[in-house]
Amino acid sequence: MAEFDLIERIRQRAGAPRPDVVLGIGDDGALLRCAADAELVAVTDTLVEGVHFPVDTDPADIGWKALAVNLSDLAAMGATPAWTLLNLTAPAADTDFIDALMAGFHALAQVHQLALVGGDTCRGPLAVSVTALGFVPTGQALTRAGARVGDGVYVTGSLGDAAAALDALQSTADAAVVAPALLARLARPTPRLAAGQRLRGIAHAAIDVSDGLLADLGHVARASGVAIDIDAEALPLSVALRAIATVPAARDFALAGGDDYELAFTAPADAVLPALDCPVTRIGRVVAGSGVRALADGRTVIPARRAWEHFA
Amino acid sequence: MAEFDLIERIRQRAGAPRPDVVLGIGDDGALLRCAADAELVAVTDTLVEGVHFPVDTDPADIGWKALAVNLSDLAAMGATPAWTLLNLTAPAADTDFIDALMAGFHALAQVHQLALVGGDTCRGPLAVSVTALGFVPTGQALTRAGARVGDGVYVTGSLGDAAAALDALQSTADAAVVAPALLARLARPTPRLAAGQRLRGIAHAAIDVSDGLLADLGHVARASGVAIDIDAEALPLSVALRAIATVPAARDFALAGGDDYELAFTAPADAVLPALDCPVTRIGRVVAGSGVRALADGRTVIPARRAWEHFA
Repeated sequence: MAEFDLIERIRQRAGAPRPDVVLGIGDDGALLRCAADAELVAVTDTLVEGVHFPVDTDPADIGWKALAVNLSDLAAMGATPAWTLLNLTAPAADTDFIDALMAGFHALAQVHQLALVGGDTCRGPLAVSVTALGFVPTGQALTRAGARVGDGVYVTGSLGDAAAALDALQSTADAAVVAPALLARLARPTPRLAAGQRLRGIAHAAIDVSDGLLADLGHVARASGVAIDIDAEALPLSVALRAIATVPAARDFALAGGDDYELAFTAPADAVLPALDCPVTRIGRVVAGSGVRALADGRTVIPARRAWEHFA
Repeated sequence: MAEFDLIERIRQRAGAPRPDVVLGIGDDGALLRCAADAELVAVTDTLVEGVHFPVDTDPADIGWKALAVNLSDLAAMGATPAWTLLNLTAPAADTDFIDALMAGFHALAQVHQLALVGGDTCRGPLAVSVTALGFVPTGQALTRAGARVGDGVYVTGSLGDAAAALDALQSTADAAVVAPALLARLARPTPRLAAGQRLRGIAHAAIDVSDGLLADLGHVARASGVAIDIDAEALPLSVALRAIATVPAARDFALAGGDDYELAFTAPADAVLPALDCPVTRIGRVVAGSGVRALADGRTVIPARRAWEHFA
C-alpha cells in the first residue's frame, strides 16, 4: 500500500466530525477553533516497540494505549480533550496491522468524541507518537505545584495491576496463564478524564501515575515544596492483584510499578470529594519537608523495584 | 544521564518565555493562551534516522530540520507559529548528541520566537517527531483547495538543490566534495513563513514542496478540481545546481526531488504579488482538467526519478 492510500485509509477512520474542526486531515495542517474562556492544554507521548510494549503486542492495544497515556496526562490537568495528532512509524504498510491499530485508537477516541486531525506515517522501527489537545477553563487547571501541608493524598482506581501483568508476562512463555483482569489493565488503561474534570476547584495538586506512585508523587512534592507520607496499608490493591501476589509484592507493584494511569491528587483533609466515576482511596497526607515515603506498621517501605526510568 | 536530568536539560533550553505560555515543560501538560480572532493550526511530522536523514547526520542539522519541516507546513497554511512539542527517541542519553540536536532545534525556534512547551524522551531507534502549533486569522488560511482555472502557478526560492545534494552524498564516500550550497539546502531548509503570511488574501491555494513539485502540485490540482501545466523551462534552478547538473538532470531534481520546503501557490494571473523575503518565480498556470504536467519545448517532461513516497 502506498503512503497516500495509507493516509486516506486513516483519514476515513478519523471519527465523527466536530464543529470545532474547520479543516482536518488532508491539507498541510489542521484548522481548529479554540474554546472560549479556556486555556489550551497540549500533551504528547511516544510508545516504542520493545520499550513501552513487547514485540507482538496486539496492534489494537498499541493504538488504544498510545492515545490513553496522552489522555491520562490531560486528565491530570483537569482538561477536556478535543483533538489528536498521530505519528505512526512502521516497518511496512501492513494493512491489517494498521487497521487494527487504528481500530484500537478510535475505540478510545470515540468514547471521548475526539477528532484525529493530523499526523504522518513513515517507514521505520515501530513507534507511535500521539499529541492530544484539550481545554480547561481559564485559571482552573490542576498542576503538580499546589499541594499544601495538611492535605490528604488520594488516588483513583487501584495500583500495581499493570506492572504485575508485565512482570508475569516477562516470566512466562504463555500469556494465557496471566490473569485477564491484570492484562487488561496493562493493555487498555482507562484515562480518568471525568475524575480530573470534576476535581477542578477541589484538588490542590494532581498528577497521573505512569512511572510509579512514589516517583510521581515525588514530582508533586518537589513542585509543591512539601513532603508526602503514604500509608502503604491503605494502597488500593485489586482483587486480581491480591490473588497472585503477597502483600509485600503487591505493595511493591503499587508503589513503584508504574503504567497505572490513575490520578494521584491532594485535597484539603476535610474536603468532601465529588462523586467520581471510579473508586477513590485516601492513601496519605502532605507534611512539611521534602520527599515521599511509604509507611507500614510504623516502618518505611522500600520497594524492591525501582520506578520506570528511560536511560537509567 | 537519567531521564529526568535529560528533560531538565531540555527544559533549560526551551527558549525565551512567551506571554501566551501559562505553563511550559514540567507538568503533565502545557497550558497555553490561544490568539483571539484566529484559528489554531496544528501540524506534525517525524524524521527517522536512515529514512529522512542518513546515519551520522550532524545532530544539530537533525534538530533544525525536524522543526523546519513542520514550520514549512505552517507556512503553507499562512500561519504564524507559536509553540512546539518534541518527541525524541534516541538509543542512548548521549549528552553531547542531545545538546547539539537541541542547539539546532533552538537556533531555528529562536528565529521565529517559538516556545518549546512539551514533549518526551525515550530510548529507542533515533527518531524525532515535532508538533508545531500556530495561528491564522479566522477564515484566512491558505489551503490546497482554492486554485482556479486561469491562476498563475508560483514557487518561492529554487527547487532541486536538496535532492541533488542527497543524490551526490549517496554516490560519494566523501561529503566534502559535495557543493556546500547544496548541502546547506538539504541540512537546513528555510521554512517560508513570512512569505506564507504575506500571501494570505492573495494566493488561492498553497502547499509546501516536500515530496517533489509534481507530486505536491498534484495534491493542489486534486483538492481544487483543476489541472496544472508547468513550464519546465521556467523552473528556478540555483547556480549551485546548474554547476553540477545538466539541464535535464536539474529539471528532474526540481520536478521530483523533494525536500525543498519552498512554497508553491496559485494566484490570479494579474495579481500583484506582495514583496516577499525570497525570490518568487512564475512556473505555470492552472487549466481545466485534472493532473499536473511539465512541458519544455512543447513536449511533456517525464522525470526519471519518482516523488518520494514512504512504503513505495
